[in-house]
Amino acid sequence: MKSQKLVKEVTRRDEDFSQWYKDVCLKSELINYSDVKGFFIYLPYGYSLWERIQSYLNHKLKKSHHQNVYFPLLFLERLFKKEKEHIKGFSLEALKIDKVENKTLLETLIIRPTSEVLFSQYYAKKITSYRDLPQLLNQWCSVVRWEKNTKPFLRSKEFLWQEGHTIHENKKEALKECRYIINLYKKLGQKLLAVPFVLGKKTQLEKFKGAQITYSIEALMYDGQALQSGTSHYLGTNFSESFGIQFQDANLQKRFAHQTSWGISTRLIGAVVMIHGDDEGLNLPPYLAPIQIIIIPIQIKNKDILAKAQQFYQKLKNKYRVFLDLQDKHVGWKFSHYELKGVPLRIEIGLRDLTQEQVTIFIRHNFRKIILKEQEVIKNIPSLLKKINQDMFQKALQNLNQNIYTAHNYEEFKQYLQQKKGYIKMSVHANEAEFIIKQETRATARIILKEKLITKICPVTRKKANQTILFARAY
Amino acid sequence: MKSQKLVKEVTRRDEDFSQWYKDVCLKSELINYSDVKGFFIYLPYGYSLWERIQSYLNHKLKKSHHQNVYFPLLFLERLFKKEKEHIKGFSLEALKIDKVENKTLLETLIIRPTSEVLFSQYYAKKITSYRDLPQLLNQWCSVVRWEKNTKPFLRSKEFLWQEGHTIHENKKEALKECRYIINLYKKLGQKLLAVPFVLGKKTQLEKFKGAQITYSIEALMYDGQALQSGTSHYLGTNFSESFGIQFQDANLQKRFAHQTSWGISTRLIGAVVMIHGDDEGLNLPPYLAPIQIIIIPIQIKNKDILAKAQQFYQKLKNKYRVFLDLQDKHVGWKFSHYELKGVPLRIEIGLRDLTQEQVTIFIRHNFRKIILKEQEVIKNIPSLLKKINQDMFQKALQNLNQNIYTAHNYEEFKQYLQQKKGYIKMSVHANEAEFIIKQETRATARIILKEKLITKICPVTRKKANQTILFARAY
Repeated sequence: MKSQKLVKEVTRRDEDFSQWYKDVCLKSELINYSDVKGFFIYLPYGYSLWERIQSYLNHKLKKSHHQNVYFPLLFLERLFKKEKEHIKGFSLEALKIDKVENKTLLETLIIRPTSEVLFSQYYAKKITSYRDLPQLLNQWCSVVRWEKNTKPFLRSKEFLWQEGHTIHENKKEALKECRYIINLYKKLGQKLLAVPFVLGKKTQLEKFKGAQITYSIEALMYDGQALQSGTSHYLGTNFSESFGIQFQDANLQKRFAHQTSWGISTRLIGAVVMIHGDDEGLNLPPYLAPIQIIIIPIQIKNKDILAKAQQFYQKLKNKYRVFLDLQDKHVGWKFSHYELKGVPLRIEIGLRDLTQEQVTIFIRHNFRKIILKEQEVIKNIPSLLKKINQDMFQKALQNLNQNIYTAHNYEEFKQYLQQKKGYIKMSVHANEAEFIIKQETRATARIILKEKLITKICPVTRKKANQTILFARAY
Repeated sequence: MKSQKLVKEVTRRDEDFSQWYKDVCLKSELINYSDVKGFFIYLPYGYSLWERIQSYLNHKLKKSHHQNVYFPLLFLERLFKKEKEHIKGFSLEALKIDKVENKTLLETLIIRPTSEVLFSQYYAKKITSYRDLPQLLNQWCSVVRWEKNTKPFLRSKEFLWQEGHTIHENKKEALKECRYIINLYKKLGQKLLAVPFVLGKKTQLEKFKGAQITYSIEALMYDGQALQSGTSHYLGTNFSESFGIQFQDANLQKRFAHQTSWGISTRLIGAVVMIHGDDEGLNLPPYLAPIQIIIIPIQIKNKDILAKAQQFYQKLKNKYRVFLDLQDKHVGWKFSHYELKGVPLRIEIGLRDLTQEQVTIFIRHNFRKIILKEQEVIKNIPSLLKKINQDMFQKALQNLNQNIYTAHNYEEFKQYLQQKKGYIKMSVHANEAEFIIKQETRATARIILKEKLITKICPVTRKKANQTILFARAY
């Protein structure tokens, strides 16, 4: 029998946030390291979080007439070079293959870091008339980028994602798609992850290489750092001009098509860990959790208690992801174990519960216990889960709102940064100020705010301020 | 408006089977070629077949307590060399990466051709006690093998598959798992693909490199060639000895664990095309089909017909994958189009149907038409779909059974082969005869039959016959 202590070996969050994060990811068995630095193994508990995100998004995307496809892992490096900005963004990170068994290939291949060029090449062949538009394609796959500083979920040399690639007749429709998607991502955050996102446009410096506009959703981690959690790009005709994607419109005129691309990745799991987790470990929102309800009979040898626990398990198992723990282990160990695993609800059935015809319900995220009469349990679970999701979202939202600061001068900006305060708003002269700030403070422009200028003069460049930007240090 | 002819441009099946196959795959829009030979694009219609296979199998695997994971795409070549037989099987096909941006890596990486070594490495760390066993892991991913002769779905440099990797206390349990899986695959064939498989053990020469036993399901294509469609391997302790996967059993003895691995791939889609397809194109079994029912109003301008068509669409859409075609195109074109796409049921609503309060139902696989009273349609669809699946399966089964021949001597064997007859049974002296047969005729041993010897002497080697084997040329 493992001791209670063994389960709890998670570094305290305020002591060393980075170590806490690694501990939680490893000890709750979301992930494991492989032998190659920067490549992670997604274990069942972690992978099932991704499956749930997939299932939520697939359902929504299919409703809005998006179709799943699978495009090759490897493609010609030559294609990659066609769009000039795009190649700049990825050239250092892309893995190349130029020989097979010592025979040099005619053309160098690369492992996809993202697939805009492949989809563009396909669309160039496929699309001839406005009747062929729009095309709303999406794929679930992994991509490889040779990142240097890696961290479970947040930054890895390979990660799982979905990449949508759509193509439209005109700018208006492409932009509509682009915004539809980023709002869908935001809603996924609220409904499934209990994570509030700030949504906005990226600056010229931070936008996707090859895009005209990048919309981003950004989350705020417990340590005050921001996390870009999903992006939706309006590519304009950049790729369609490079790849010759022309169609004949209703007036028989040749025109270039307008494209979008968008994606979310396993990063979202990192956000969930960092935002909701605590000193006990993982803390999962109820609609995402692989186990929503853990049933623990307090006296494992008591037949009446076991029978009652079984009864609840049978009643719940078809509607919820529920697990009945009958292991011959200390109850305290079990409590800690499922807290570490972040299971939202724990139903405890002890002797007292039995005689009183009640159960004790422990709520993981706020550590509260409630007592419900047996006959009330089933009825109350849907509202309990809903309430937990809302509460977790509200708590994170409150933390987000309380950690957006306004800087009227550069000193103030630096002070907030030093205090790890989260987001800092400042009005600056684009893009010069942003570049200086990044160099001097490692803070980056997260999104452009649609707000009035805070100061007329940019505190960094002393030139005319023309944009109010949300800055933060980011993962 | 496209002419009827444009749709039908599929080579006749008996004229050039290989060209017919490519035509069907491309024109029904299952797949497209990419710019790199041997890498295919899975288009929505083709990919959704794979999604349905995934969904069927995931459901079954989860019921039997298998868990999904994701292991890295790239791993150390060194790992790959640990199991001596295994590396022989894949060394020529594996893609290697030894530098990133001109910097040589400390250790060469390979792109996974299969992941036994990765899972073994993980199990070596994870498993210490019999309490850690079994582990039943599975992943859905793509693998890369540098194959020379490629063909859509059947053989490609990258393909989608699932690979299960399980580990057990002893041989008995591992073999039980191994057989459970191969039978699950066989059942998937019957229930979802309407494809009958021959199930059996592979010979020593044909088994998976690194396995002790390989079970295989084999399908017979229209042209008489066999297709290995799924395999389940008992790996014994081969990998666990190479990787040091030892556990302490209940008697505190150290023992090596027993492993299995198993997989099916997008090959199955190729089997469906080749087995059921005909001169009109694709012919999809009803539970696999992306569109199960196509509703075609014969007179598109007639409001009453349109209203009736809409009515049926509304009634059917929540239970079936149904599509109502309101395009302003010739009815003949539509008929051909959905026949090419292999849609199992077509509901036609014309003037006569309207006045008689009936609909005409066209059944794709046998080209029969039936007439049903309006009120009978909804009620009859489940049994119609079931019947179609059964009929398609029975037809394929009959073809399979009629094309298993018995050779009493080598001449007879060669004659059957020349006549493209399908499977040929012969009793041979293993493994010598098998090797000669492969060299001389390109026929390979598909599976070992559990049947009495046909001849006492092997017709090929003139030595004592000791195995009855099912031979065929294979994809």
